[in-house]
Amino acid sequence: MPLPDDAQIISVDDHVVEHPRVWLDRVPSKFGDAIPRLERMDDGSDWWIYEGKKAGNFALNAVAGKPREELGLDPRTYDDMRPGCHDINERLKDMDIEGVWAQVAFPNMPGFSGRVFEESTDMELAEACTRAYNDWILDEWCASAPGRQIPMVILPYWDIDASVKELYRTAEKGARSYSFLELPHMRGLPSYHTDHWDPLLAATEEANMAVSVHFGSTGASDMIPPEGGHGGGVNINRITVMGLNSAFAMAQMLTSRMFHKFPRLRFALSEGGIGWMPYLLERIDYVWDRHRWYNDINREIPPSELFKDHIFGCFIYDDAGIEARHRIGVDQIMFESDYPHSDSNWPHTRKMLAASLADVPDEEARKIVELNARRVYNWPRSSGS
Amino acid sequence: MPLPDDAQIISVDDHVVEHPRVWLDRVPSKFGDAIPRLERMDDGSDWWIYEGKKAGNFALNAVAGKPREELGLDPRTYDDMRPGCHDINERLKDMDIEGVWAQVAFPNMPGFSGRVFEESTDMELAEACTRAYNDWILDEWCASAPGRQIPMVILPYWDIDASVKELYRTAEKGARSYSFLELPHMRGLPSYHTDHWDPLLAATEEANMAVSVHFGSTGASDMIPPEGGHGGGVNINRITVMGLNSAFAMAQMLTSRMFHKFPRLRFALSEGGIGWMPYLLERIDYVWDRHRWYNDINREIPPSELFKDHIFGCFIYDDAGIEARHRIGVDQIMFESDYPHSDSNWPHTRKMLAASLADVPDEEARKIVELNARRVYNWPRSSGS
Repeated sequence: MPLPDDAQIISVDDHVVEHPRVWLDRVPSKFGDAIPRLERMDDGSDWWIYEGKKAGNFALNAVAGKPREELGLDPRTYDDMRPGCHDINERLKDMDIEGVWAQVAFPNMPGFSGRVFEESTDMELAEACTRAYNDWILDEWCASAPGRQIPMVILPYWDIDASVKELYRTAEKGARSYSFLELPHMRGLPSYHTDHWDPLLAATEEANMAVSVHFGSTGASDMIPPEGGHGGGVNINRITVMGLNSAFAMAQMLTSRMFHKFPRLRFALSEGGIGWMPYLLERIDYVWDRHRWYNDINREIPPSELFKDHIFGCFIYDDAGIEARHRIGVDQIMFESDYPHSDSNWPHTRKMLAASLADVPDEEARKIVELNARRVYNWPRSSGS
Repeated sequence: MPLPDDAQIISVDDHVVEHPRVWLDRVPSKFGDAIPRLERMDDGSDWWIYEGKKAGNFALNAVAGKPREELGLDPRTYDDMRPGCHDINERLKDMDIEGVWAQVAFPNMPGFSGRVFEESTDMELAEACTRAYNDWILDEWCASAPGRQIPMVILPYWDIDASVKELYRTAEKGARSYSFLELPHMRGLPSYHTDHWDPLLAATEEANMAVSVHFGSTGASDMIPPEGGHGGGVNINRITVMGLNSAFAMAQMLTSRMFHKFPRLRFALSEGGIGWMPYLLERIDYVWDRHRWYNDINREIPPSELFKDHIFGCFIYDDAGIEARHRIGVDQIMFESDYPHSDSNWPHTRKMLAASLADVPDEEARKIVELNARRVYNWPRSSGS
């Protein structure tokens, strides 16, 4: 079956590259040269400079439309990318080309969930930068594209009170989600097994927001060897296993008390893939069944039951997962394009997605490409339009 | 279809508990009190004592036949386990009860692959203990059960020359496999991406041995939070995700040059499960296709091609993997019972396996339960009998 023409594809994981003045225009000038800015190096590459230090280049993160033979880890320039990376009007044109109606966009300079700001020396500046990003993504980027940009923000997650405050401030302005850490303990913060995050999770329910946890948001695992790490000879190893971070996050969430305490939470495992989910769901129930008696865990509700309505898999291309979709649940699966990252299939997004779903009945395909995302992100067809 | 009566089930992952005199009888007496021995503590529990320090109890690792409500992490005694854990004649009876014909047994006291000896103060003693284990498992345990115990040894892997020597010494005595580290870099050793292991891998091919890498053999990942770690409230989290270690190991192997250099190597991912394999195989080709041009990797042969004949999935109970078996390849899948660990279904092993394979054609079922293991472990029906 071809994908129905009237299905509006919603991609739940894409990326912006912030334009050079996002922070210069919004962070109080008292912070001076510490404010994030784009600078051209002697080698001709453009880098984000924050608190006087290099804070990232684009490299593989703004390559939509490039031939694969040209991909690499060398730093690049702002001009050497499609304008759709940073210009909302150009972005909408690129979405039209790939056949995507609406999307959720993650930040670039701050890292997926604001890690760069967490590492600041001046935490007052860090919070100001977080707010500035949110004001830009809400007031400029999303506001310029009614219905087509699902507003997602970042939080000063290193400060739980400030996070709750920023969550409510941005919810008021229309935010539907925030980008969060997949494995907080890997940033030295308490894990989902603790009650540390309860105030934030309670606010999340109250504001009816979805939580988007992007793979790699808390860094790479120690299970990737130095030789296969970023910049090493075998970057393929590192990129291949990133989805397993999401599997670790899911196991942690499902063995915590999180969804028992906050039954309306919705977590999207952005870019995590779905093909491993049938294994993990079967495995976690098997282990729970044997070991629940001596563990501090709910002994009545199997973890796979908690999965439903709470955790959502996001795929770009995952035929194994599509084939096994009934083991996951067709209500738990969402699509993503990942524009303009190297994993994206732009401009062939809709064509490749339709091919992946060729054997999927229309009713299920509609859920996967559109309706689940509208429900999870609280984004009905009339949103923002 | 029921499992054909004449199919001899081969389990590629079970465990021994060494009897108290394994090392006392075999390690030169000059090492005195440092030699591994079993001692009863004041609380009545039995512990292995090595170099004067506690080196492990059995806890969850010798629980075949126990009701689930009685499982726990408390240390236990040698008498509180089925004699089949440490007595080969009793083991054969327990195998008859569960319907398993032959098996591959991993060590208990040394850790899956000899990690406890690696951590020794006296490395001469460490090597002597490794040899003593091998002599015991070959000359006493396996020799007492012709055809029914596939001999697997451990190596002094911290010393590559000594490992090659011990490999040849034990191959001469009939060893068909050695238990090895799934992710050597997590023990501070070079990864599979280096050429460090080449002499050992060359000897492995030469001696026609299989390599068995048990999940957890190199420890837990940093992606498991302290609160969910061993002994914490949520041991279920830790046990659930162990199979993902095998996924990391597989990605590393398939992005290394290992199988290009040594095309006859066979690695069994013991207890790793199989349900995640379709995802990883699809994902690794997807990433390879995009990123091969700037990576130090073979650009002609997709990683999924290298998987064939080289990496073998081992499952206890994995309906998702069985259903997706053609994505993995029915030649790449082996069964395991995991007796006497908590994951085992003893005494219902054959019954549950038959139920899992109810929809699998006989020809495929025979490969999965018997023929693949006979090929990988070089163990034809006439072996040892």
